[in-house]
Amino acid sequence: MKFKKICIIGCGLIGSSLARAIKKNNLGEKIVSSNRSEAVNKKVIELKIVDEADADTKKMVEDSDLIVIATPLSSYEDVILKIKDSLKTGAILTDVGSVKKNIINLIEKNISENISWIPSHPIAGTEESGPESGFADLFKNRWCILTPSKKAKQKDIDLLKIFWEKIGSRVDTMEAKQHDYILSITSHIPHLIAYNIVNTSLNIQDEKKLDIVKYSAGGLRDFTRIAASNPVMWRDIFIQNKENTSQMIDKFIINLQDLKKTIENEDGKKLQQIFEKTKKIRNDIVEAGQDVKKPDFGRK
Amino acid sequence: MKFKKICIIGCGLIGSSLARAIKKNNLGEKIVSSNRSEAVNKKVIELKIVDEADADTKKMVEDSDLIVIATPLSSYEDVILKIKDSLKTGAILTDVGSVKKNIINLIEKNISENISWIPSHPIAGTEESGPESGFADLFKNRWCILTPSKKAKQKDIDLLKIFWEKIGSRVDTMEAKQHDYILSITSHIPHLIAYNIVNTSLNIQDEKKLDIVKYSAGGLRDFTRIAASNPVMWRDIFIQNKENTSQMIDKFIINLQDLKKTIENEDGKKLQQIFEKTKKIRNDIVEAGQDVKKPDFGRK
Repeated sequence: MKFKKICIIGCGLIGSSLARAIKKNNLGEKIVSSNRSEAVNKKVIELKIVDEADADTKKMVEDSDLIVIATPLSSYEDVILKIKDSLKTGAILTDVGSVKKNIINLIEKNISENISWIPSHPIAGTEESGPESGFADLFKNRWCILTPSKKAKQKDIDLLKIFWEKIGSRVDTMEAKQHDYILSITSHIPHLIAYNIVNTSLNIQDEKKLDIVKYSAGGLRDFTRIAASNPVMWRDIFIQNKENTSQMIDKFIINLQDLKKTIENEDGKKLQQIFEKTKKIRNDIVEAGQDVKKPDFGRK
Repeated sequence: MKFKKICIIGCGLIGSSLARAIKKNNLGEKIVSSNRSEAVNKKVIELKIVDEADADTKKMVEDSDLIVIATPLSSYEDVILKIKDSLKTGAILTDVGSVKKNIINLIEKNISENISWIPSHPIAGTEESGPESGFADLFKNRWCILTPSKKAKQKDIDLLKIFWEKIGSRVDTMEAKQHDYILSITSHIPHLIAYNIVNTSLNIQDEKKLDIVKYSAGGLRDFTRIAASNPVMWRDIFIQNKENTSQMIDKFIINLQDLKKTIENEDGKKLQQIFEKTKKIRNDIVEAGQDVKKPDFGRK
């Protein structure tokens, strides 16, 4: 399987990792990219991860067999309006965004029948941003969820599935609505909670003139890693998935208030039961290959 | 600096790491340990991390120059009642517990004037438990906070400080009350939040028959590491530090509700500001040597 021309719109951490993975696995004859920033266009050429890069998205998209939107979600409307008339008949259009329901409809209504619009969500990333932080193995052993639009052709869905598998991912297909619900639990709320705890700590630090950095190895440091993720990307994710996010925050707060009462009542038995329950899932995650089994992530 | 006899009461992750660090750095002529479980006493002899181990705590403590309580906080009362009449005149008594205010008083009122009671809190650990999971370098580059009791002799405080430094720690001294407040922010609340998010996710998983393990690499997996920490130890920490914990939960919830409103209002500007603020602290933590600088903790 090899696409003649692949165009990646937005070469940040994910887009540039994808470009590298395509080269490494020889999945495209020509890879091009379009970025608003000329510095990024220059950088991706310099890094030799694409063959051509230009701010003129329309031009880059022309003749492409596979087009990947890898910009923040808030740029999708702008992108699709720019490229919709330049999409080649029979092309596959995909993306790598973390929320699906809204953008499926947004893009569907802007493209013609003969384009297979198949959103992808590779569940992979680090706290770094930008084309220099990408790497080819980012998607290895990670899940990639496809949420095909109604008009996507089955043969193209099958082809895109093979594409992600060749890059090392495991592929699942589901409804966009289901995707957004599950991801709000496994990814969006954890990020929001991390942002919130770091923000709360910073507020107290400023207010009380404390040094929280110094003692962060006691737990907080892990949250700061997640809370260092791309601010624009996450801003867009929460706004795009706001109904699920709100609902999950409410559930989270109800449980937290219950935990607070349990602590105030010094109900050690109940606390221990909860903590023993949460301990078990760690093994499952390691066994499922979704994390390393080294204690403390192998940090020294 | 070398103690003639050191007794470690409770050889779990921290106690056994300390025993290993003492041997490695040649800080004790004889190291003994007392554990309620005969299997643990057998194991620490087998692992050659102590010279002698016995369930008879009284006997083990006799003639010790340094005694370290490394049990869960809820066992302190039991331990001190057992050992108080066997403590050698002039001995240093310390511990490694994560909450200080209550236990300082508890132990102070049970010991005689000629014992220097100097609580220690090495801010180090992993999600693992038990003597087999310990290692000598656990305390390296980590902070250890001393909260000396009123009757502790200054020469003994200085000696204990050198002891922790020889093991690789950096040492700070502060009031127990201040310690418990700071640690509630940097350690206790992060752990409670991690337990709560994993618990909330498990509840939804059960209710909706979803597979959250599969997609946990999107963020949740990091929380499961922390939520796999020793349930008994953390049960005790929250109960011992319940006033600070309650107060911090309230602050956390107020901020979370504010974030929720910001998302519902689609106030992207404010969201981005918060996320950019929280991003900055990550660099400070890495620069302070409190975490590794590898993206994603260096996981592949």
